[in-house]
Amino acid sequence: MIPKGVATFLPEGTSRRREIERKILSLFSQWGYQEVITPIFEYLDVFSLGVGEDLLNRAYKFVDRATGRMMVLRPDVTPQIARIAATLLSDQPLPIRLCYSANVFRHEEEHAGREREIHQIGGELIGPSDAEADAETILLAVEILQKLGLKSFKISLGQMAFTRGILQPFESSPVSFKRILGAVAKKDASHLEALLKEEKVGQKTRRQVLSLLDLFGGEDVFAAAKPLAVHPACKAGLRRLREVYAILKNAGHQEALLIDLGEVRGFDYYTGTIFEIFSEGVGSELGGGGRYDHLLEKFGAPSSSTGFALHIERIQWALEQTAGSARGYASADFLVLHTDGAASEAVSLSHQLRDAGYRVIRRNGFHGAIESYLSDARKQKIAKILLLTGGRDKAIRSVDVRSGRQENKRPSDLLESLSSS
Amino acid sequence: MIPKGVATFLPEGTSRRREIERKILSLFSQWGYQEVITPIFEYLDVFSLGVGEDLLNRAYKFVDRATGRMMVLRPDVTPQIARIAATLLSDQPLPIRLCYSANVFRHEEEHAGREREIHQIGGELIGPSDAEADAETILLAVEILQKLGLKSFKISLGQMAFTRGILQPFESSPVSFKRILGAVAKKDASHLEALLKEEKVGQKTRRQVLSLLDLFGGEDVFAAAKPLAVHPACKAGLRRLREVYAILKNAGHQEALLIDLGEVRGFDYYTGTIFEIFSEGVGSELGGGGRYDHLLEKFGAPSSSTGFALHIERIQWALEQTAGSARGYASADFLVLHTDGAASEAVSLSHQLRDAGYRVIRRNGFHGAIESYLSDARKQKIAKILLLTGGRDKAIRSVDVRSGRQENKRPSDLLESLSSS
Repeated sequence: MIPKGVATFLPEGTSRRREIERKILSLFSQWGYQEVITPIFEYLDVFSLGVGEDLLNRAYKFVDRATGRMMVLRPDVTPQIARIAATLLSDQPLPIRLCYSANVFRHEEEHAGREREIHQIGGELIGPSDAEADAETILLAVEILQKLGLKSFKISLGQMAFTRGILQPFESSPVSFKRILGAVAKKDASHLEALLKEEKVGQKTRRQVLSLLDLFGGEDVFAAAKPLAVHPACKAGLRRLREVYAILKNAGHQEALLIDLGEVRGFDYYTGTIFEIFSEGVGSELGGGGRYDHLLEKFGAPSSSTGFALHIERIQWALEQTAGSARGYASADFLVLHTDGAASEAVSLSHQLRDAGYRVIRRNGFHGAIESYLSDARKQKIAKILLLTGGRDKAIRSVDVRSGRQENKRPSDLLESLSSS
Repeated sequence: MIPKGVATFLPEGTSRRREIERKILSLFSQWGYQEVITPIFEYLDVFSLGVGEDLLNRAYKFVDRATGRMMVLRPDVTPQIARIAATLLSDQPLPIRLCYSANVFRHEEEHAGREREIHQIGGELIGPSDAEADAETILLAVEILQKLGLKSFKISLGQMAFTRGILQPFESSPVSFKRILGAVAKKDASHLEALLKEEKVGQKTRRQVLSLLDLFGGEDVFAAAKPLAVHPACKAGLRRLREVYAILKNAGHQEALLIDLGEVRGFDYYTGTIFEIFSEGVGSELGGGGRYDHLLEKFGAPSSSTGFALHIERIQWALEQTAGSARGYASADFLVLHTDGAASEAVSLSHQLRDAGYRVIRRNGFHGAIESYLSDARKQKIAKILLLTGGRDKAIRSVDVRSGRQENKRPSDLLESLSSS
């Protein structure tokens, strides 16, 4: 009935999703990132200024009836934030820190089993071009995952300036460049060898490009990469990556760090330090990002920039794998069940409980025995039933739905015991 | 650069939007409504089971590349909730209370100045068919608006069973029915007269239909409507509306209540009590809803149901009109500015402040005078600058950005004064 890969979350999953979103947005806020809301669709020609062809090919498009122009459902939020920073916020002094919680949409084959509607929460730090800024976004991403309760993860660091520098001989031919970068991204040595043969490159270039596949590991990768850093872009890129590495190491993350100079990420706009974060037992990255220093200029206001996005579906999945999150879910704290004669007491009690923050369902028309309501309440995951059968000073019968344990309480005692718990 | 009527919110507006959303979702939760997430697009043929032609005509559609089927960007959430309740939640005992916070999308002419991307937060109460359920959704909608801080509003009550009963002579011709209902909805007496003439209806039917335009006002409308309630649907509808009115009156809302038996609302699925809530000074309704007892059966599981949605753009606008909400906005509480030598103290201070819930931007590389940073900080709406220039026991200079007032504090005193404030 519904397409594969679109978002449907029932109450329990939605409640966990909201909790994750709130924690992440609150951490972004604590780091000074201000949330913005961007349109779900916009004009294709404007949006496409900011992204590469591959991503556009995977985007959903339709014709706007009012203008006849093509619209695109956003496949990525970063270009929208860049546009906002470069236009609506162009009078603001830099740096600008922005964040968002948004869905992006990408065509997938039905059988691919991948998401077509992807929930991302991300942040962009616009202005600074230094290593501190690169490191800030990585440190924030790590802190978010730690505070969500994820314990073991790896941070993979790459450097697009270095990688682009090595592939510089192909920059005059965008098609060749892209194919070779694609083979590097897939770490497909034999395909890469074949492509290089086709391109008829010299031995030296061939060796340098192939070495991209081996330049991953610990701190020693810096030494191994140094002889290759001949092109100025490579040199500057490697120097920058060392600085970022040092900041992250100082912050205590050495164990988690992995350098991978063949890392590419799928977006055309990256120009410098890039990163991805993996968690044990989850095949794909939980988040990633990097520096994109030439995106804002496409919207008329050149500025350095770096950012990242977290993949909320995967984070939720990873958290659900850890035993700690397997706590009970209740749909409501109380079902206030009452007879018609006890209506005004029930209404007043419900109000008091709600004002105290409890989730309360009120239901008139009690008849028969309380036991006949227990089975439904159990299936509905309601925690407690409070039964009011009339009379101003009548006791309330409180029934714990799971155990069936009952006790009678006076309204004042009930509220007191709740406020003290 | 961006289409008219799509959502773009800068930090200040987003922050207010989030605050409104959180308050509303928390009230829904306190009334036992559980949030769900529904897809932004789905198959047109499935979605269209639940909505009328008019709404479908205004929906954005595109072809799904993977299946070749038509997709629709949801123009309404209620049919999605009905589908979920009737399928994924069909094993749950009734009643089911669900809520959502979601955008809906509707074609508008560029010059119409209306929203094309509309943020709604709504709830659905699935199962009960009684007046208590009708009243619950209205009472909840009212409580939400009150707790958001809106003071003066009107609740307009209608009854689709009554209205449909009066229009029963036209039910055999859907085209006539729709045109006449449309003229009633617009309260366009001369157009309605012309249509009735065209339909060649008898004097009695003509008088009854035209009277729909006059049946609005206070409690006395019930007496005026009684002679028209001949058809059983009219009788039952009127009786039900009296019950709902009585519950709302008992709850203290008599002043706000307005009966309008010519009220129709734009959705084909309503079958019983309907309502709209207006606030003084806002032309359109802030929210509304009603009973739709035949929607779930279209997805295979017949059930009574009632619900409502709030129009968040308009509520935000209404709140911004009230003086009370004109409070200052700060993008961050602290800019921790420091020299390279004070980096580790600055990092540690920033962490402590963030853990205490403050919004903190840390910035290395202080040079020159603090005054040169004030103007940017003011534009960025940062509340305070904390300056650290090195040394373990050195004082922190705290600068209030708006007033420029400075004082020196020891780190321990600073944290203490913050935690006590």
